[in-house]
Amino acid sequence: MRSDLIHHCFTTFKDTSPLVHNITNDVANNTVANVLLAAGASPAMVHDINEAPEFVQLAQALAINIGTLTHTTLQSMLATVEVAHTQSIPWILDPVAVGASSFRQQACTELLKFKPDVIRGNASEILALAGMSSRTKGTDSGDSVDRAKEAAQQLTQYAKVVVITGAIDWATDGTHSYSVNHGHPMMTQVTALGCALTALIAGFIGANTLKTEDSNSNSSSLLNAATTALCYYGQAGELAAQEAQGPGSFYLHFLDALYNLEAQTLIDHLRVTSS
Amino acid sequence: MRSDLIHHCFTTFKDTSPLVHNITNDVANNTVANVLLAAGASPAMVHDINEAPEFVQLAQALAINIGTLTHTTLQSMLATVEVAHTQSIPWILDPVAVGASSFRQQACTELLKFKPDVIRGNASEILALAGMSSRTKGTDSGDSVDRAKEAAQQLTQYAKVVVITGAIDWATDGTHSYSVNHGHPMMTQVTALGCALTALIAGFIGANTLKTEDSNSNSSSLLNAATTALCYYGQAGELAAQEAQGPGSFYLHFLDALYNLEAQTLIDHLRVTSS
Amino acid sequence: MRSDLIHHCFTTFKDTSPLVHNITNDVANNTVANVLLAAGASPAMVHDINEAPEFVQLAQALAINIGTLTHTTLQSMLATVEVAHTQSIPWILDPVAVGASSFRQQACTELLKFKPDVIRGNASEILALAGMSSRTKGTDSGDSVDRAKEAAQQLTQYAKVVVITGAIDWATDGTHSYSVNHGHPMMTQVTALGCALTALIAGFIGANTLKTEDSNSNSSSLLNAATTALCYYGQAGELAAQEAQGPGSFYLHFLDALYNLEAQTLIDHLRVTSS
Repeated sequence: MRSDLIHHCFTTFKDTSPLVHNITNDVANNTVANVLLAAGASPAMVHDINEAPEFVQLAQALAINIGTLTHTTLQSMLATVEVAHTQSIPWILDPVAVGASSFRQQACTELLKFKPDVIRGNASEILALAGMSSRTKGTDSGDSVDRAKEAAQQLTQYAKVVVITGAIDWATDGTHSYSVNHGHPMMTQVTALGCALTALIAGFIGANTLKTEDSNSNSSSLLNAATTALCYYGQAGELAAQEAQGPGSFYLHFLDALYNLEAQTLIDHLRVTSS
Repeated sequence: MRSDLIHHCFTTFKDTSPLVHNITNDVANNTVANVLLAAGASPAMVHDINEAPEFVQLAQALAINIGTLTHTTLQSMLATVEVAHTQSIPWILDPVAVGASSFRQQACTELLKFKPDVIRGNASEILALAGMSSRTKGTDSGDSVDRAKEAAQQLTQYAKVVVITGAIDWATDGTHSYSVNHGHPMMTQVTALGCALTALIAGFIGANTLKTEDSNSNSSSLLNAATTALCYYGQAGELAAQEAQGPGSFYLHFLDALYNLEAQTLIDHLRVTSS
Repeated sequence: MRSDLIHHCFTTFKDTSPLVHNITNDVANNTVANVLLAAGASPAMVHDINEAPEFVQLAQALAINIGTLTHTTLQSMLATVEVAHTQSIPWILDPVAVGASSFRQQACTELLKFKPDVIRGNASEILALAGMSSRTKGTDSGDSVDRAKEAAQQLTQYAKVVVITGAIDWATDGTHSYSVNHGHPMMTQVTALGCALTALIAGFIGANTLKTEDSNSNSSSLLNAATTALCYYGQAGELAAQEAQGPGSFYLHFLDALYNLEAQTLIDHLRVTSS
């Protein structure tokens, strides 16, 4: 991906400070909000069915995360993504541990009907979501990113862009694909950093896509925006790891790095390739 | 406000270590508890209708926050504030993003019937709660504190004290008012610090007001207690900002500053004026 | 307790990286997950009745915490502990503030029918759970560990092992008992560290007990595993306190210490005695 496009996506995100509406899980709420604030976006965590479908219309993007799903929250998610879908508000699905219960699988089947703009998961989640066998263990992935690429391709029938995160992230719109070689293993030792990445991608697609674009250019915009978020997030992780002595200090340095990382630094250290 | 009164309110709070009952939002729960503990209070986060109205009777004060309101939680809030109101247990309302949905507006209308002792919001929330137009964007304020002062005055028909927080905080009981020029912009880059301030004010009013006081002296006590909490919180923010390199490190230094700040330091650096 | 047994329990835990299923409270979710990750376990926080009884069968252990109990969550807890009990998946009960409401007391009575492997509480909670008078104040203990030992003995009719945490922790299986003299007062100034200890004990018993053991050796294994978790947790607290300047920095150093503490360091600094 061209570095000037990444520069553009990044500065547009920073200038827009998008309002990201999250219906996320009980573990991630605080972390998601802090990551979005540190990155310069504006988080909202409205989840009740009495207001979520109304509130989403104020937002630039919507992030749906099934980490601690309940029947009640699912009803609210479905009502809210329907509004997002109808009104072309971009939304992203994080199918946390979808392979771990039939409840999650059925929930995702229902959510996919409203065509997320982006799906973001680890390899096990992408495999399970595509109906392939995986080696999931709770929320951690037992599968490699490479093994899940075919599943991601299949899922582009539901979503314009699919992102698999792991040691090397991979994002595809079915036609073009990018590998992002950023990040640090310590990111898996802090809870909810995957959930927070999903929310950050929501912010990037909210800031960088236009409702009126035609479908093809929209997929391309979404892919560029998501890939830029991956580069930014991964580089912040690398910077944090240089300072950290464990997952506690890593988390604070990570938020500081998201806050301080500048466009030029991002561009100077890119490790992203077409693939 | 006289510095000896601030000294008194502060040391009474520290000596009392009040039990603060919170029915707050999913994002703020952990942060509210940690702020109260760092400041020396005792937090409890009981929210189910089966026990919240019973539990509040053990508490020195109650903090209600509608950040992630549901129908179920609202019923519990109403049952609990009714007990607080009847038994003169001081309570505070934080009308988070009240302008963002009709659900929140109706909830606040119902809650106000039970006469909160204090209301604490940003300028947009205070304007929206008073029925005036505001420029709210999610939970962030798009309005200035000055613009909301008239709205705060109006709200003193429901609450004895109204606090508007922003670059310069303002607290009024309808007769007397104080401007508190403490704090740091970084406080807006960490989630739930407004919610946690509401809980801290609850602790200060719980420790500093007596159930048997007559109504006038009660308003004055509440105003002094709330103003002292604002000074304490803002100074802790200033101290944290001197050490922080971003919102991650800010949060930990902020908790440390709340824990370590002493009465004499507070008094030596006061920037509070009648206004 | 012999140091070679502690060494064995510790390294078995680290090698196993147990999946710990938590149904815990709204305040603790994030902290519990981060403590388990820092210690090297794999957390899951699945709580809905539609999947929790199914999900627990994937886990090495289950931790139940009533900190912010609701009627809905209680039903899910009961369905899940029934599965755990039937299938000999070890589970632990954390009876947070059980003395604070009749709702909590009744909930614990129902939960105890499914025979937790371990109960972990502060002195006030253990006293209240055994039906004795206590001086509870919210979630903080007003009682000493010594005063609660008789209550703990009584509770071994329900649970194989009972742990009282305080200045000096005490763990008993009704026959053998250990006092663990580790930890630091700062641990009480950070919310949810008690809840997270419960989850860590779950990880230790999950990694160190075998489903097929006979009942007596099982009690002994459970006691050794729980005692090792207490030593590990307390030592991490001591290390963190050496670096901390308040509860904010304490928490991050605590996670770092859990992550970095090695078996030999643990063994070299043990302060555990039979008692």
